[in-house]
Amino acid sequence: MFEELLDANAAYAKTFDGAGLAREPAKRLVVVTCMDARIDTLAALGLKPGDAHVLRNAGGRVSDDVIRSLVVSTRLLGTDTVVVMHHTGCGMATINKKSVREILTDIDEEHWEPFQLLEIEDQQQALREDVTKVRESPLLRDLRVAGFIFDVKSGRATQYL
Amino acid sequence: MFEELLDANAAYAKTFDGAGLAREPAKRLVVVTCMDARIDTLAALGLKPGDAHVLRNAGGRVSDDVIRSLVVSTRLLGTDTVVVMHHTGCGMATINKKSVREILTDIDEEHWEPFQLLEIEDQQQALREDVTKVRESPLLRDLRVAGFIFDVKSGRATQYL
Repeated sequence: MFEELLDANAAYAKTFDGAGLAREPAKRLVVVTCMDARIDTLAALGLKPGDAHVLRNAGGRVSDDVIRSLVVSTRLLGTDTVVVMHHTGCGMATINKKSVREILTDIDEEHWEPFQLLEIEDQQQALREDVTKVRESPLLRDLRVAGFIFDVKSGRATQYL
Repeated sequence: MFEELLDANAAYAKTFDGAGLAREPAKRLVVVTCMDARIDTLAALGLKPGDAHVLRNAGGRVSDDVIRSLVVSTRLLGTDTVVVMHHTGCGMATINKKSVREILTDIDEEHWEPFQLLEIEDQQQALREDVTKVRESPLLRDLRVAGFIFDVKSGRATQYL
């Protein structure tokens, strides 16, 4: 598998032109979205390499680690616009800590107890919470923040917030 | 800006075919990499929508939130292969908590004190730490894990671990 990825990368590098790309995103944009395999973040939003920071985790949730990354992105690397993009058919909306524990019976209680799942109970509510976390973080300043939902069947993104 | 992204997405959706894509990544792969704007994760590794989960944050560090996402990806959604891909020219290698504090003087000490930056002091050491965290996490099991470094000038990925 690793070999296959490196071979594909060698072909990619032949046409990659990194010389003109800066560390600071050209569109001053940062996108927070889910790890879901069906989301090709740049392509889905018409972006090119160099345009935007991309943060991804299970659910596209605004975790402490996303706030950490947004501090670096928005306060040190010049971005000022944030899109939080959740999606339809998200696995995080089908589980909770109790249901996961029934599957993962091999984890010691000491490691399981502090584990935070950040599951999604209600999609629009979760999106609202995450957008609000960005807007109200005491570590962040002066951002434009939107909330999108990406439809993994149609490929369409819709703005909700 | 939001309008521009949604217009570009409408064009993308016209050719997007999500019908055949499952929630479980087809290549049973998850890639952990940096938010850096110059990394187009899928394209750089020859992947298509549906192939792999993608986790991204500042530095591509294996934070608690990455472990959370890896639990969901590897133990609930069938992935078994992890690539941790750091990159050259990473902003996280140029800062530390003290240097950032000198810039961000407007954050209250109570919010600043618990803030974890997860900066990179030594690139290969950080990559080794992150790969080891995945391999040794008490929440994860039976994974193949590699460590790549992506060169943002040439577009080439190299396997170090």
